[in-house]
Amino acid sequence: MKFTLQKTCAITGARAGLLETKHGIIETPVFMPVATKGSVRGIPWQTIHDLGAQIVLGNTYHLHIRPGEEIIEKAGGLHAWSKWPKPYLTDSGGFQVFSFARRGKAKIDDSGVTFKDDLAGNTHHIGPKESMQIQRALGADIVMAFDHCPPGNAEKAEVEIAVKRTQAWAEQCLEISLKPHQDLFLIVQGGRHEDLRQESLEGLISLNASGYALGGVSVGESREEVDKVVQSMSKYLPADKPRYLMGVGTPHDLKVAVSSGIDMFDCVLPTRLSRHGSYFAENGKVKSITQKAFTEDLETPLVSDCACSTCQTFSRAYLKHLFLRSELTVYYYLSVHNLHTLINFSKQMRQAILEDRFVQFIAEKNII
Amino acid sequence: MKFTLQKTCAITGARAGLLETKHGIIETPVFMPVATKGSVRGIPWQTIHDLGAQIVLGNTYHLHIRPGEEIIEKAGGLHAWSKWPKPYLTDSGGFQVFSFARRGKAKIDDSGVTFKDDLAGNTHHIGPKESMQIQRALGADIVMAFDHCPPGNAEKAEVEIAVKRTQAWAEQCLEISLKPHQDLFLIVQGGRHEDLRQESLEGLISLNASGYALGGVSVGESREEVDKVVQSMSKYLPADKPRYLMGVGTPHDLKVAVSSGIDMFDCVLPTRLSRHGSYFAENGKVKSITQKAFTEDLETPLVSDCACSTCQTFSRAYLKHLFLRSELTVYYYLSVHNLHTLINFSKQMRQAILEDRFVQFIAEKNII
Repeated sequence: MKFTLQKTCAITGARAGLLETKHGIIETPVFMPVATKGSVRGIPWQTIHDLGAQIVLGNTYHLHIRPGEEIIEKAGGLHAWSKWPKPYLTDSGGFQVFSFARRGKAKIDDSGVTFKDDLAGNTHHIGPKESMQIQRALGADIVMAFDHCPPGNAEKAEVEIAVKRTQAWAEQCLEISLKPHQDLFLIVQGGRHEDLRQESLEGLISLNASGYALGGVSVGESREEVDKVVQSMSKYLPADKPRYLMGVGTPHDLKVAVSSGIDMFDCVLPTRLSRHGSYFAENGKVKSITQKAFTEDLETPLVSDCACSTCQTFSRAYLKHLFLRSELTVYYYLSVHNLHTLINFSKQMRQAILEDRFVQFIAEKNII
Repeated sequence: MKFTLQKTCAITGARAGLLETKHGIIETPVFMPVATKGSVRGIPWQTIHDLGAQIVLGNTYHLHIRPGEEIIEKAGGLHAWSKWPKPYLTDSGGFQVFSFARRGKAKIDDSGVTFKDDLAGNTHHIGPKESMQIQRALGADIVMAFDHCPPGNAEKAEVEIAVKRTQAWAEQCLEISLKPHQDLFLIVQGGRHEDLRQESLEGLISLNASGYALGGVSVGESREEVDKVVQSMSKYLPADKPRYLMGVGTPHDLKVAVSSGIDMFDCVLPTRLSRHGSYFAENGKVKSITQKAFTEDLETPLVSDCACSTCQTFSRAYLKHLFLRSELTVYYYLSVHNLHTLINFSKQMRQAILEDRFVQFIAEKNII
């Protein structure tokens, strides 16, 4: 994998870059749609392609439980199995198995997490070694280290343990060899605690990985707390390597992240919002399609200046009707709009950075 | 509307024709996907277009209840409201309101059906006049007469009443003026009773409508009974007008219908099957994607000689995985296959009729 920094905004630190993988070149900043179980929720691959997605995320925990990494490896890896030929990134499964722990359904120790899955109820153990072995079999271009991700409201003592464990596990992950086309990213923990974030960051940077992620963000903290961590930490991530903010977001999150020098983001929000009849409005805020004024609004698209096929085609009244009658197509139409919003906003920010007008672009875009 | 009979198979009576409407020319035989509430279940319009659909069905009952025909008319009719620019046909709502009656939730008399809807519970009355007024507002190219559709196991006396009422209502429907681009089709009733079918047929033919449909078919009878009605009755429908068999079907149904001289069919089966993980196999039979052999079948498409995008792209193993994990995309992928199967089979039959090789084509196709 080769990362080329093309341009950095002198005022904000926002960056435009190229990330070259075996399965294609990724232009950053980039929003990555989430294909947890090998499919973006409700959206056919052709549409993901048409939306201009450059890389998608698979999930190690979910794919390990079903269908299992053996069959995916036998198919030739995630790309061949799911027929998405462009780059893939796999999350390590840490986030999922730690959410079992939060519900009292898992035992954590220094070797990893032991838990019963929520399907067949079998007992599993996933630690850094297992996560790497599964991700090796899955064959994504970018694989994530197995980290300890405490909840957003965790006590400092717990976050401290998480930071130390994440460091030890990162070292163990680096010892497992991946396939030639795969690269490992390490994940900075530390919650809201600047000193712990700094400790995690320094420890992981010393390991000289291919890329770095901010983890444990947007796991229950306030928006201000998320912004603060992103704004204060991003600048310390190595400048010559891709920087990934995990699990956000919204147009606001992307604005803050890119302005802080982040290159990559992922989130299930665009498709999840659509299942609740929600969409990103002009200013990036989440609005509901069920609002009263939409019932008879036959003239206006969801968002007036949006170039997505949904806004180019359908009225608010028609989309609201489909949602109220639980027509499955509305989830598709809203997801197309929401995914387009984030993919296109990332692309616009990239273009603005390259053309030295990022600050001006952000000011005019008026994302709140 | 202009119907041109291009060719009739001398052996079977199978026909190829052209049906010219304001919104486009329909090449027959044609399978019509069902967009009950203004959207084909789970399939975006772009895909319906890409599948080569020429005309779709809306439902008068459902669209009357929500969002109401006023707003659709205000939008410029079904085409403009739903953004499907090609021909539309609306069912009269008779089938739906009579299904309320079967569940003891409606009162039928010679003026129509009085019932409470299953949403807000408001009381409605729909008879021939109301159905025509609603369909006029909806603006479909082809509108269906409001008929009395008894269940498949109804006593002969009940079917006899249905035939007489359907005749009287057809006359009333013809008295209501439609929009200039709209044409009314009448619906033959009579259940499994050849004498009643004949009576209904002769009565309706005397009214000289733009097209004729066989109704009350596939409403609970055996496959053999359906085949018998289609085979014995189709030939009596006026040769110079389009013939529509309502509510079927399967590749088998299409084979029987086209061989009997039918030009048009519709059915929710292609999308309904997909929600149950079922698909049309090579020989037209319905099979399940959950079969054991599919778990590890990474090489074979659903149907080997199928040109649909699903079969051209995905393995059985991947599709089965998506279904078992309730990933919404599998309903899309299976629906694309099932719709393609019927649309393409219709197209192939048409081509064979035009090229004087229909009997040979059907023999080779081996639909059972």
